[in-house]
Amino acid sequence: MTQPPVTPFAELQANWPHLSIEERVHGFRKLTRDYREDLFFSLSSADQAELVLTMPEHERRTYLRTLPPDDVADLIQEAGDEEKDGLMALLDDMARTEVRALLAYAEDDAGGLMSPRFARLRPDMTVDEAITYLRLQSRNMETVYYAYVLDAHQRLLGVLSFRDLFTAHGAATVDKVMHRDIVSVQEETDQEEVARLFSTHDLAAIPVVNASGVMRGIVTVDDIVDVVQEEATEDIQKIGGMEALDAPYLDTGFFEMVRKRAGWLSVLFFGEMLTTHAMTHYEDEIARAVVLAVFIPLIISSGGNSGSQASTLVIRAMALGEVRLRDWWKVVRREILSGVVLGGVLGCFGLARVVLWEWFGGSYGPHYFPIGLTVGLSLLCVVMFGTIAGSMLPFILRRLNFDPASASAPFVATLVDVTGLVIYFSIAAYLLRGTLL
Amino acid sequence: MTQPPVTPFAELQANWPHLSIEERVHGFRKLTRDYREDLFFSLSSADQAELVLTMPEHERRTYLRTLPPDDVADLIQEAGDEEKDGLMALLDDMARTEVRALLAYAEDDAGGLMSPRFARLRPDMTVDEAITYLRLQSRNMETVYYAYVLDAHQRLLGVLSFRDLFTAHGAATVDKVMHRDIVSVQEETDQEEVARLFSTHDLAAIPVVNASGVMRGIVTVDDIVDVVQEEATEDIQKIGGMEALDAPYLDTGFFEMVRKRAGWLSVLFFGEMLTTHAMTHYEDEIARAVVLAVFIPLIISSGGNSGSQASTLVIRAMALGEVRLRDWWKVVRREILSGVVLGGVLGCFGLARVVLWEWFGGSYGPHYFPIGLTVGLSLLCVVMFGTIAGSMLPFILRRLNFDPASASAPFVATLVDVTGLVIYFSIAAYLLRGTLL
Repeated sequence: MTQPPVTPFAELQANWPHLSIEERVHGFRKLTRDYREDLFFSLSSADQAELVLTMPEHERRTYLRTLPPDDVADLIQEAGDEEKDGLMALLDDMARTEVRALLAYAEDDAGGLMSPRFARLRPDMTVDEAITYLRLQSRNMETVYYAYVLDAHQRLLGVLSFRDLFTAHGAATVDKVMHRDIVSVQEETDQEEVARLFSTHDLAAIPVVNASGVMRGIVTVDDIVDVVQEEATEDIQKIGGMEALDAPYLDTGFFEMVRKRAGWLSVLFFGEMLTTHAMTHYEDEIARAVVLAVFIPLIISSGGNSGSQASTLVIRAMALGEVRLRDWWKVVRREILSGVVLGGVLGCFGLARVVLWEWFGGSYGPHYFPIGLTVGLSLLCVVMFGTIAGSMLPFILRRLNFDPASASAPFVATLVDVTGLVIYFSIAAYLLRGTLL
Repeated sequence: MTQPPVTPFAELQANWPHLSIEERVHGFRKLTRDYREDLFFSLSSADQAELVLTMPEHERRTYLRTLPPDDVADLIQEAGDEEKDGLMALLDDMARTEVRALLAYAEDDAGGLMSPRFARLRPDMTVDEAITYLRLQSRNMETVYYAYVLDAHQRLLGVLSFRDLFTAHGAATVDKVMHRDIVSVQEETDQEEVARLFSTHDLAAIPVVNASGVMRGIVTVDDIVDVVQEEATEDIQKIGGMEALDAPYLDTGFFEMVRKRAGWLSVLFFGEMLTTHAMTHYEDEIARAVVLAVFIPLIISSGGNSGSQASTLVIRAMALGEVRLRDWWKVVRREILSGVVLGGVLGCFGLARVVLWEWFGGSYGPHYFPIGLTVGLSLLCVVMFGTIAGSMLPFILRRLNFDPASASAPFVATLVDVTGLVIYFSIAAYLLRGTLL
């Protein structure tokens, strides 16, 4: 538990994300030793790595050895491959073995999040023995919310919260008091799934077991807050139409950021080129009735906006586990209806826009009503198409094992722009044939 | 701690979000009493309220009384005003007083999240006395990660983690062992700020104090996971261009959902109508050079896409506290540079598109190069404008005390569409005067 006072420690900590590396090191050096440690503990793994790499070897060793093994593993991962061996060499033998095991897990799995230091009990201990034992052991444990009861083969038998221990009769044996129905995860469970379990069950820690039930470590809820923030950030950036950054905005290198944006922007650009082909195809119609061109941005953007609403709704509901792949029919039914209502509303606005303009000083000529009808009907159809496409795209992407969050607002808008043009000109061809076209 | 086994309890729990109210009640009734309680504890406050309202009075009383006061307050809030008095009447006197106090706080403040039941110690107790005392008291406490040391006026003096208690010498007094530099929040601290503190300091609980330092309760990290998810969901839905829903997608009433989407969709529609005015203004130019119309969707949507990237990046960085209002100049400098690079790339693509098309079977006539130049230069300027506008809009909204997340992808796209048209036709007027125009 890190507990900063008001100043200058607190000030340095609050300003940390906004400082340059030189300012960070300078501020860090000026703190007393205790505050340096407090600050160090409160930093993200990336910031810890950055700071450790500015230190001389004896100091590196001290700071590395104060961290629990899961945090050391994260720090080493952030420091990069070329620093890995040098940093590993500074650890004591036990920690090195633990860290090496942790580094073998994928960063986004339960195994990559877990700490191997948890409170263990034997089933035949009494509650009083357990409390005494935990008092002796707790220096080596990262957290002491729960104690886990293991058999001789290290298989997980049950769990006790400290509240359970405290309220139980001192002479009872642990296996009489423990809970046997345990929420646990496997080492390769994805961190989003782990976060969902924490949220559903309101737990402070979840045990990680391997396929034969042997307990490997615990994931604690304070690590999950960061996971949830990270996953939301990734989804938001993807929804915004780009590759997710891996670091805070101001810490991301300029060229990396531009690369991650330019990639999707170029893909969208080539997609959007299809509108140019579609428009070229309708060049004659535009030449004959320039008035048609005037409504193009209004109509296609309305489709894009309604599609963006639908896709973000579905992406988020999927990420939270509220909507599953097999719910697609429930969603599509709902979205068709939404599309009809929303399209109906905008369609009426569109028709009214043309008709009222004509009445109050108009410029659309004698065929203003069929023009208004074309605009209104196109809005209805394009908004309906946008809503359905936007809501289905995340399902299709997930079905194909892509991230549904890639159904970004710009991606859906591009898809709808092309189709919207075809819808608009088809309706125009039908309604205005013999008059304007 | 709720710990479900595999089936049928686990199945019901996993399917819960996808069941109708009748199926939920039916499934709940079929469980044994213990599992009913476990399930009840694992539900969201809204689902708990829904279930409680289907119960007869004696059962309502039982379930309400098993919940800690902060959860009762949430349940009553979800049940709605007309049920409030009836539910409050079922509580015992102590709980009713606590719940009434909690209901006075805004839902999004630290006060609305906190539990008034926490572990209290006096500074002059010994560690052994403290452990014994906590063993007796822990039945009434929601969580036992930390014990808080209060003076005679209930002012917060210090904090002890259970690990501290366990590792300290039994005869030492509490005030020698406790930490005095405490991270605490006020009752009216916003929940986003509370979440940031949890994330920065890796805490399991944060104490809530009033202005004179009197301790009112604790906020625990398991509640914060839900807060973080909720806040991210709100931001994602706003970024998608709609009002945030207050409930899961499939639980939100159809008309409420459509209303929340139609509102923004209509605002965007009226904003986008400005493109119609702009296009009408350039009708003569389009009539003279229909080829100009062909590139309109490509150019304006590229501006919208780059704007959407920039605004979502800044919105998220603001929500995470990485970027503050006073950082606007740092951001704008970065985004101008990004805009130049991204616009340069797309501008080259645009120029190449026109020139290559002409070379390989072309249709743009003798003035194809100035046309290509117009398209390329417009892309450069529109993407630059989109990037700058998208990154600055969240700052402007926050400065005016609006939610920066309202700078949604569709909102930025609409803004850029109108300006993009003006930029495009101005460049065309300049470069094509005397040839096509």
